Amino acid sequence: MTYCLGITTKDGFVAASDSRTNAGYDQVNVCRKMHLFEMPGDRVFVAMTSGSLSCSQSVVTLLRKDFESGKGLAAVETMYEAARCVGEQVRRVSELDRKALEQDGYKVNVHVILAGQIRGQPHDVYMIYPQGNPLRATEDSPFVQIGECKYGRPILDRGVRFDTTSLEEAARYALISIDSTLRSNVTVGPPVDLLVYARDEFNLDRRRRFRDRDPDFTAIHSQWEQALRQAVAALPAVDFPPDAER
Amino acid sequence: MTYCLGITTKDGFVAASDSRTNAGYDQVNVCRKMHLFEMPGDRVFVAMTSGSLSCSQSVVTLLRKDFESGKGLAAVETMYEAARCVGEQVRRVSELDRKALEQDGYKVNVHVILAGQIRGQPHDVYMIYPQGNPLRATEDSPFVQIGECKYGRPILDRGVRFDTTSLEEAARYALISIDSTLRSNVTVGPPVDLLVYARDEFNLDRRRRFRDRDPDFTAIHSQWEQALRQAVAALPAVDFPPDAER
Repeated sequence: MTYCLGITTKDGFVAASDSRTNAGYDQVNVCRKMHLFEMPGDRVFVAMTSGSLSCSQSVVTLLRKDFESGKGLAAVETMYEAARCVGEQVRRVSELDRKALEQDGYKVNVHVILAGQIRGQPHDVYMIYPQGNPLRATEDSPFVQIGECKYGRPILDRGVRFDTTSLEEAARYALISIDSTLRSNVTVGPPVDLLVYARDEFNLDRRRRFRDRDPDFTAIHSQWEQALRQAVAALPAVDFPPDAER
Repeated sequence: MTYCLGITTKDGFVAASDSRTNAGYDQVNVCRKMHLFEMPGDRVFVAMTSGSLSCSQSVVTLLRKDFESGKGLAAVETMYEAARCVGEQVRRVSELDRKALEQDGYKVNVHVILAGQIRGQPHDVYMIYPQGNPLRATEDSPFVQIGECKYGRPILDRGVRFDTTSLEEAARYALISIDSTLRSNVTVGPPVDLLVYARDEFNLDRRRRFRDRDPDFTAIHSQWEQALRQAVAALPAVDFPPDAER
């Protein structure tokens, strides 16, 4: 399994991903799921993938090949075209592998999050479905998730707002959301990759990889757990008045 | 969908359930999922159900019929036997309905949480699978959930401990866990039923139903959301030192 998320705010975007892959219980591996496409000063993209590693690797390989020869993500003019461009490669891999996979009972199930900005255009975060169609994160729904989404969703629902959440805060929300998922689900695992991009920056330098037991990540984890317990303790007591409905 | 949970601690147990049922988008109804079986002073049981309402209703009806004639839950001697007794009715309904349901593509998928105590015995919380086999909540895993479990799980993982969590706190954790699920998932809905049982009490009077916009529930919801935002704001800032791994 996998957990990746992208958050967009008025100031930029945050991307975060775990690194656990597995094919059955015996083949558990570490694999970076965050892929960068950078033409500093002109355009930047971050792609994160979930689904069968073989298929998602193929999608990234094809995107990379085009990008390096000045095509695909290197040539698109808007983020919508960029998302469509990713969708085309998802469809291409689906065509290449679907028949062989399905006849042995496997599914083609690649999801991609694409965040980025092209000079002269607003930054954007998209989720691309396994069918290749893109969904844009909006002011009302400013984050997208792929993989094991549910554990890490409540904290995002409570706190992330397009207009008022700073990038700094969005980065903390992303780490907490991933930490909650790591805590509750064994198929999501470290290292955690985090990237923060401020609008019109046009480079992807503010990145960091948190390995297992990273002291900074551990500090956030511990302080968060403590704060949650204190917040529960500070809640009003639950009463059972005799005239309450039962 | 449904969300029910049972928490056991050294002092007793807490049970909580939502009330939304649906058969497609047009048939959304309210239905109590918490069922009480009480012989005050001698034994008490709370059963909560998820899965097809038709099947789970049948299970409760059969349990009730036996109970009222002094059999089944009225006659068992341990909580393990009580859980087995529920499992038997789950299997009976499965036998009654499985064939007809499956031939039209439906599944028999009743899960039950059974919490209770019989005089002279310790209190216990069980989850009964659709196949009828029981799983007991333990000191190490002091809660069980059925239905839409994932959104409400991280807060339980962080805070609920068999030895140290008071019943009062466990009740708040249960409400927050349900509130997180209501917030993030539209298939779980109010009213919320909450029950707190202190060991050796042998009655189920500490109960309450929170309807939509209940002022006490709303107060907990708002204070919790505020506390979470403050806790995020108080976390250490995420640094990107130049020598950090990327």
